[in-house]
Amino acid sequence: MKVVIVGVGLIGGSFAKDVKKLHPEAEIIGVDKSESHLDEALELGIIDTKGDYGSLTLADMVFVSIPVNALVAELPKILDAAGDETVVIDAGSTKSLICQSVDEHPKRRNFMACHPIAGTEFSGPSAAIEGLYNGKTNIICEVEKTAFKLQERALAIFQDIGMRIRYMNPDAHDKHIAYVSHLSHISSFMLGKTVIEKEKNERDIFDMAGSGFESTVRLAKSSPDMWAPIFEQNKDNVVETLEEYIQNLTKFKKLIEDNDFESVHQEMNNTNRIKQILKGIPLTKK
Amino acid sequence: MKVVIVGVGLIGGSFAKDVKKLHPEAEIIGVDKSESHLDEALELGIIDTKGDYGSLTLADMVFVSIPVNALVAELPKILDAAGDETVVIDAGSTKSLICQSVDEHPKRRNFMACHPIAGTEFSGPSAAIEGLYNGKTNIICEVEKTAFKLQERALAIFQDIGMRIRYMNPDAHDKHIAYVSHLSHISSFMLGKTVIEKEKNERDIFDMAGSGFESTVRLAKSSPDMWAPIFEQNKDNVVETLEEYIQNLTKFKKLIEDNDFESVHQEMNNTNRIKQILKGIPLTKK
Repeated sequence: MKVVIVGVGLIGGSFAKDVKKLHPEAEIIGVDKSESHLDEALELGIIDTKGDYGSLTLADMVFVSIPVNALVAELPKILDAAGDETVVIDAGSTKSLICQSVDEHPKRRNFMACHPIAGTEFSGPSAAIEGLYNGKTNIICEVEKTAFKLQERALAIFQDIGMRIRYMNPDAHDKHIAYVSHLSHISSFMLGKTVIEKEKNERDIFDMAGSGFESTVRLAKSSPDMWAPIFEQNKDNVVETLEEYIQNLTKFKKLIEDNDFESVHQEMNNTNRIKQILKGIPLTKK
Repeated sequence: MKVVIVGVGLIGGSFAKDVKKLHPEAEIIGVDKSESHLDEALELGIIDTKGDYGSLTLADMVFVSIPVNALVAELPKILDAAGDETVVIDAGSTKSLICQSVDEHPKRRNFMACHPIAGTEFSGPSAAIEGLYNGKTNIICEVEKTAFKLQERALAIFQDIGMRIRYMNPDAHDKHIAYVSHLSHISSFMLGKTVIEKEKNERDIFDMAGSGFESTVRLAKSSPDMWAPIFEQNKDNVVETLEEYIQNLTKFKKLIEDNDFESVHQEMNNTNRIKQILKGIPLTKK
């Protein structure tokens, strides 16, 4: 089996590690615009060789894990270069624009639009970890547009690395993911910003920070190169979630200002049921 | 050694466990307005016996870990009941009002105002864990108002259970802690609320939630009984942090609406230095 990873960072590198573990005979070829990332991936044993789009024609599988703005630009070229029997899988955190970018492509049937919901706040080849996808959800969009045989090949790998599959249309994906992922990142980034701005003497203030702050601000470590394009592509949904979030914060502040601490208590009590909801998230089973 | 724990939940129970481990001979007496919590603490071996304020007069140490509204009401009575040689320690997440509540008390020198920055999103005796305080920061306010001998006794225990000590005045504590703790909780509660409100079909949406959402929303599991009084006591600081947070979110939304994704990138890039800052937080060394 010949697998090409386009973008050998956390997501692509982790996928490569899992494939290699399952299929030690597989040849893993890395493609990346960063030569130093490729060198790093080689050294770490994540890929077997470096390649380019010329390597795609004989590939059984191409896994494209690059920022979503690059995805929209590169995906048509990748499909151009892919062989007739190659399945091209993306891992973009948005789906509408990506699906649109290849909707009329003559090799649309070689493409499977995916969003494996997995990751950490770190990035680059050194952040790649084996088993990242185990127990995680993979959202597949417009599955009916992918050739049956190629669907099967991709699904077999996803199953082997332990992913749960969910099918959705790209617009529903982008709308929902804005709430459970994109908004979390913005809330975390702005929390980090608010605290950093306020506290000139970092040492003193961060000495006081507990694990609660750490957990809430964790996503503010994420890569701007990855996230700015996501917010751009999912602009309308992200703005909508932000408006609702800001409204809820403003209402909560008003309750405090009005000394209505019964309602403050009630609001928190209602939200406590996130406990039960989170228990249902498969990812909590670490 | 005779130690009375007033409020045998996560905080008091964890303290009791550490004391018992260090001093197996110590007698741990539990006081709680909830009879069922006391029974549970007894069963779990967290306390040796149940007691009441009558038990305070012969105590070497009293650890008061109850919601901050109850603290303000009970602390004067606890000092009334304490013996001349008893050191009374609180664990409240606010400090100004608590210090004020006993400032003129004839036994003020028996009191040490503390905020051990430790905890989890869980509560009750069953949430108590050994070692909770190891490596965590304990903020002590107005230390000069505590009798030398009693300071020594308290500090020896804090050192033995692995806490780092920081001295602050109550107003500075309340101002800073609003940023690194109280604001995190509100941002998390409102994130949970926004997502729950939006998504009627929980199953579908939360299937899509990843570990990022989970980490950002973790604090929304916290106890409203504990947090509503904290926001009440620290109202002015909390409102100020919320205003700044809402302002930053609104600015970020505007940048997205204006398609200024260079600035969006820049904002996130600036906040990325939270990575370095968090590395300096001792609590990250788990």
